[in-house]
Amino acid sequence: MPALEAYKRELDYSYAPGLFPALEAMTKRPEIVRRLLVSSKGQDSEGVQKLISFAQERYIRVETADKALSRISGKENCFAAAVFGKTPLPLRSDADHVVLHHISDQGNLGTILRTALGFGYHDVAVIRPAADAFDPKVVRASMGALFSLRVMEYEDFDAYRQDFPHHAAYPFMLDGAVSLDAAAETARRPCALIFGNEGAGLPPAFQRIGQPVRIPSSDEVDSLNLAVAAAIGMYEFMERG
Amino acid sequence: MPALEAYKRELDYSYAPGLFPALEAMTKRPEIVRRLLVSSKGQDSEGVQKLISFAQERYIRVETADKALSRISGKENCFAAAVFGKTPLPLRSDADHVVLHHISDQGNLGTILRTALGFGYHDVAVIRPAADAFDPKVVRASMGALFSLRVMEYEDFDAYRQDFPHHAAYPFMLDGAVSLDAAAETARRPCALIFGNEGAGLPPAFQRIGQPVRIPSSDEVDSLNLAVAAAIGMYEFMERG
Repeated sequence: MPALEAYKRELDYSYAPGLFPALEAMTKRPEIVRRLLVSSKGQDSEGVQKLISFAQERYIRVETADKALSRISGKENCFAAAVFGKTPLPLRSDADHVVLHHISDQGNLGTILRTALGFGYHDVAVIRPAADAFDPKVVRASMGALFSLRVMEYEDFDAYRQDFPHHAAYPFMLDGAVSLDAAAETARRPCALIFGNEGAGLPPAFQRIGQPVRIPSSDEVDSLNLAVAAAIGMYEFMERG
Repeated sequence: MPALEAYKRELDYSYAPGLFPALEAMTKRPEIVRRLLVSSKGQDSEGVQKLISFAQERYIRVETADKALSRISGKENCFAAAVFGKTPLPLRSDADHVVLHHISDQGNLGTILRTALGFGYHDVAVIRPAADAFDPKVVRASMGALFSLRVMEYEDFDAYRQDFPHHAAYPFMLDGAVSLDAAAETARRPCALIFGNEGAGLPPAFQRIGQPVRIPSSDEVDSLNLAVAAAIGMYEFMERG
């Protein structure tokens, strides 16, 4: 493996920076973790010690790499990061999907991945152009949830739709015809909950796809934050045991 | 008024940076806006022109202030900001409240203010120590929602409780006894929805206050993002017409 570079999309590997994300990577997807990087400053900390023994049990190489860590994380105090191979997992055709169309903010994407896992959604499609789900900032914002999810990128919505023509589509739109409560009550499964870009929302063409859904809210705000809207949609559509 | 300083908590004024937050300040609380700052670069833009005519109609002084704008916003491309006096509005005793206990992240606080307004909550208590609701970063993250809300800071939860002893308290806790659906269905009004710190949540003592509530979620995540949890709580407790 050549010298570790600052992350960019073209690389076939990425980083899970921070104790918790690195631990999640090694616990949930040990087969894709290539190395564990630790800082010389953090070696005495309990968290780093735990990571190191985890890595050793799994025969993952451990390396002290202060410079690489600050280059990767852009921070001086990043104590550890897992280096992992980017191997997308295909979505399951019998599971509910979360579909993120042209999502652009890395923090939002990470938060949505974490929320998806919290509400039992394990299959997420990202429609390009969009933030990169494997970017270390997204991995960190997801608190490592990425490693418990199947995440696939698609060139456009049609490509996603060709793979999963039978999912009941629920595009979330400010002018969706049906309110969220009603849509969730009568939801067909498996379903695809579709959320648009932070600024622009979904293009009007989504009015003709499946059952457009509206989150009831006051006209005192233009819209809700995307991570908030997605969370409410996922919560309401969640299958409760 | 002396020269404008970079914002700090001790000042009796703050800034609403950005076109939309500045417009919200002048539209919703014109009486507290002291000046409108505009950048020389942005003067031809339609948004800035609209702000200037708004200000003129309300006899608000307009000032070209490039240096002050970059100092205030920390950005080079901030085209406008409203300077406003920090005059907290007391909460109403007959309205539902959102109570944020030791919230520390400015982005979360701003997002929660925006979501509160979106779901019809106009009264927010912030229990110190906490992020500063009047900080320009919070104002910006709230998209100016601050100017449509009553926001009060309290030294501690007891001080809040003394002012509003009759609100039905619903502390949101990972081990709350009642699930959110059930709590919302039987909610007493007016209610206080209480959310804790990003990392630590609410202290265990809140188990003995009102009716602790649990958001149903998978054990695959430790917790939800605070702004997400608060949004879901507010959504479920929202009074629907």
